[in-house]
Amino acid sequence: MRTERIRSWWGWGWQDAAVGEAERKGLVGRLPPHWVADPMPVPRVDDLDLRPPRVRTPDSLAPICTAHPHVRVAHTYGKAYRDVIRALRGEFARAPDLVAFPETEEQIGRLLDWAGDTGTAVIPYGGGSSVVGGVEYRGDGHDAVLSLDLTRLDRVLEVDRTSRAALIQAGALGPVLESRLAPHGLTLRHFPQSFEFSTLGGWLATRAGGHFAMRHTHIDDFVEALRVISPSGLTQTRRLPSSGAGPSPDRLFLGSEGTLGVITEAWLRLQDRPVHKASRGISFGDFAAGLDAVRAIAQSGLDPSNCRLLDEAEAAINTGRADGRAVLVLGFESADHPVDPALARAVEIAEAHGGTADPKSTQDSVGGWRSAFLRMPYVRDALARSGAIVETFETACTWRTAAELCATVRTGVQAAITEVCGEPGIVTARVTHVYPDGVAPYFTVIARSRRGSEVQMWDQIKAAASDILDRLEASVTHHHAVGRDHRRWYDAQRPHEYCKVLRAAKSSLDPHGILNPGVLFD
Amino acid sequence: MRTERIRSWWGWGWQDAAVGEAERKGLVGRLPPHWVADPMPVPRVDDLDLRPPRVRTPDSLAPICTAHPHVRVAHTYGKAYRDVIRALRGEFARAPDLVAFPETEEQIGRLLDWAGDTGTAVIPYGGGSSVVGGVEYRGDGHDAVLSLDLTRLDRVLEVDRTSRAALIQAGALGPVLESRLAPHGLTLRHFPQSFEFSTLGGWLATRAGGHFAMRHTHIDDFVEALRVISPSGLTQTRRLPSSGAGPSPDRLFLGSEGTLGVITEAWLRLQDRPVHKASRGISFGDFAAGLDAVRAIAQSGLDPSNCRLLDEAEAAINTGRADGRAVLVLGFESADHPVDPALARAVEIAEAHGGTADPKSTQDSVGGWRSAFLRMPYVRDALARSGAIVETFETACTWRTAAELCATVRTGVQAAITEVCGEPGIVTARVTHVYPDGVAPYFTVIARSRRGSEVQMWDQIKAAASDILDRLEASVTHHHAVGRDHRRWYDAQRPHEYCKVLRAAKSSLDPHGILNPGVLFD
Repeated sequence: MRTERIRSWWGWGWQDAAVGEAERKGLVGRLPPHWVADPMPVPRVDDLDLRPPRVRTPDSLAPICTAHPHVRVAHTYGKAYRDVIRALRGEFARAPDLVAFPETEEQIGRLLDWAGDTGTAVIPYGGGSSVVGGVEYRGDGHDAVLSLDLTRLDRVLEVDRTSRAALIQAGALGPVLESRLAPHGLTLRHFPQSFEFSTLGGWLATRAGGHFAMRHTHIDDFVEALRVISPSGLTQTRRLPSSGAGPSPDRLFLGSEGTLGVITEAWLRLQDRPVHKASRGISFGDFAAGLDAVRAIAQSGLDPSNCRLLDEAEAAINTGRADGRAVLVLGFESADHPVDPALARAVEIAEAHGGTADPKSTQDSVGGWRSAFLRMPYVRDALARSGAIVETFETACTWRTAAELCATVRTGVQAAITEVCGEPGIVTARVTHVYPDGVAPYFTVIARSRRGSEVQMWDQIKAAASDILDRLEASVTHHHAVGRDHRRWYDAQRPHEYCKVLRAAKSSLDPHGILNPGVLFD
Repeated sequence: MRTERIRSWWGWGWQDAAVGEAERKGLVGRLPPHWVADPMPVPRVDDLDLRPPRVRTPDSLAPICTAHPHVRVAHTYGKAYRDVIRALRGEFARAPDLVAFPETEEQIGRLLDWAGDTGTAVIPYGGGSSVVGGVEYRGDGHDAVLSLDLTRLDRVLEVDRTSRAALIQAGALGPVLESRLAPHGLTLRHFPQSFEFSTLGGWLATRAGGHFAMRHTHIDDFVEALRVISPSGLTQTRRLPSSGAGPSPDRLFLGSEGTLGVITEAWLRLQDRPVHKASRGISFGDFAAGLDAVRAIAQSGLDPSNCRLLDEAEAAINTGRADGRAVLVLGFESADHPVDPALARAVEIAEAHGGTADPKSTQDSVGGWRSAFLRMPYVRDALARSGAIVETFETACTWRTAAELCATVRTGVQAAITEVCGEPGIVTARVTHVYPDGVAPYFTVIARSRRGSEVQMWDQIKAAASDILDRLEASVTHHHAVGRDHRRWYDAQRPHEYCKVLRAAKSSLDPHGILNPGVLFD
């Protein structure tokens, strides 16, 4: 299953899948012409000003470590808009000194011991798809920085077909683990947008969300057991379908973002592959009406696997629809039983809330959405190079707050864009994850950038957005983690006493403070 | 909603609901005659040898504290078999010195401050229905012991109908909170066997399980936000349907069993009241065949609200059935849509696994089961007084282990009973909570006791059972918490590094170590 395709060191995904010049011209043709700039050139890695490594590993670890410039720059940032811009600008002052590719837990243990002894910060690194500064060293208290790439730990170690679970190494990328489960007729069915370029360990460490609307959303709920190597020692939790024995140890490490230990293996709950599917599109006069319908469906107990509500602008962009209506796509899937009755009831609820159902099934447009969704980050890179700020953010809030939040975010972020960019931009909203008690709205921002100020401009817009989320007591993130970019608002969201607990846990598990410093807490 | 009924100080539930003499005679008639002893007498509280309180609260707290003997003895133990026996024996050497009934958080804060200053252990106390020694002081490092009864904090403070959630004070007993939600057309639908005599706070602190088979099982999944008072300060989490922002602070306190703080309020996710119901009984040649069917149903995505499998002996006891078959009762409920198709499909799966469905619905027998289930602890008390050890224990394990575990527990526990009691007893099994990846078997033990040795005898049998669970890597508890009785096996189950984290959390939140000492960790 090894592929010879090469990952982009500065932007999203595969190098060979990057937007080419012809496609780029087409894309920028959809922007206001005065926004469009000549594309930022992609520098040659050999031309980058990289500091020589400040440290070297013992000979015994040397074979799994590299200081190759291409590898170091590729491991410097995640894949946010601000990361792409900084990479294109050649800003690599804080590149890791070394990148390690351990193949065993024993090697991880030795690397952590060595790092503790030498004051080297260790950044656990899976697929590198963080969009929140989660894999980037920004501190100055360490003598060197090691990026710990876990992708060689990518095997499925054991499959328990009876319990429908598997023991999987944390470095497995999405397609790798799915390809290894497929012969058993099983699937994890966790499909974040980053699926191709993120690992199980990254999903676990960040409490990632898949693309299903309900139930099978956060990876947290799939975890039977974890295996974590901290500088202080190994944590292996017991494999249980459920337990009432004390606070869940798994839940401490889920979302710990590499600060408390390196997740090396996990037992995951799996699914049979779905064979029954049904899907339908429904349109609404506006997004707020759609939200009401989505709430009723989310509280019905029908549990759609897709319940994707696009506002007017997203509907126009994604479905080509020009009638100014918001669009809801409902989908149901099952490996066991037909889902048409569930779809019919959900459509009935939507219609009772003012929706107009498409006359026929939308199977095709679901596939179309998915392709466009997976292509989006490549498009983002092309637009980012050509004069546009293109970024997203998401949150979660109760239904009581949802409509006000969506309206306030649009207005407030447009105001921030106007202030920062000198003119309004585009702010769109969609909903892809819903709960009986609330929803996770997802926003896309497209605005005019000024060459050389892109990062600061986006940071100002993002700060305005995060301030609004904080004021309305929504979450600073639903499934993109805290990293370093969300710290200010996470610090406000997280109870103070709990921060003390996290610090105490850190002192116990990582006494030298080498693991991913700056993430989550100081 | 206040009732004038009086709680039993020595046994389960309401004093006026205890098994009377005529009923007791009927019950013991079902035991082997040579087991039956004259019932242990219930002592008069005034005759008990209670140490005078070793401490007094400041005048400002005096009005909410009492040293009344009846209250002190009623707050000394939980309601396990071993608790009932000890109470009847008049063993109250470790009764709390005082019992406090705070009505505000401010009073709780002052009580904790006072306890820290005076070296007084504080045992948070909800309904007092612990069956694992969770509310009982067994240490000797404190100058005095305060039982902190939270049942005066029993209001529903706010209802968010739109999000279907409510802010509820932790001291609300099950019927109290349900009666206050009913006018809003809402229900928490968390119905543990202890429902009448346990509180929301107790459920949260112990990760309690309700009686529904799937999804709506552990209280954990209903929690939107918590409010917890620790000696170090207040923790208030943000109300969110879901979040990916760092490790979940709620999950640290869920299952913390009063060791890290006193839960005072929680926002809980609620349900609409179900209007569609369907139920059916299915019998199997043996329990193992029934387990296979239950697994297939649990993995189907149908999510029955009841999926209760009784082994041959339980079926005979509970349904009067004498054909030696195991019985599965399947039930579905919904507030939104008819559930007959889901039931039909589940029955089809059961039949494909060798089950024989009853010709018609079992609505009546469901009600009958529930009454018998709620009556069972009273029956336990009567039998316990009359020469029988009667106790239960439960676990959770993967499907791969389930059949072996059930068989091994029966054999091993019967061997232990024979060794301890000089003759075999009765060991029955049932399943009430199921998961796609595993199951929570529940065992009942009935054996012959020797007057004066009841506690030691049960402890030996229970130790044999727990050793088996530990050896098979099952959980020491599925929904009865750890308390003090499960400590030895919980210590083996809980990862060592995680124990260090819990201790570090404790040092941070409860620096004087006053909260429920001896529970979970030392």
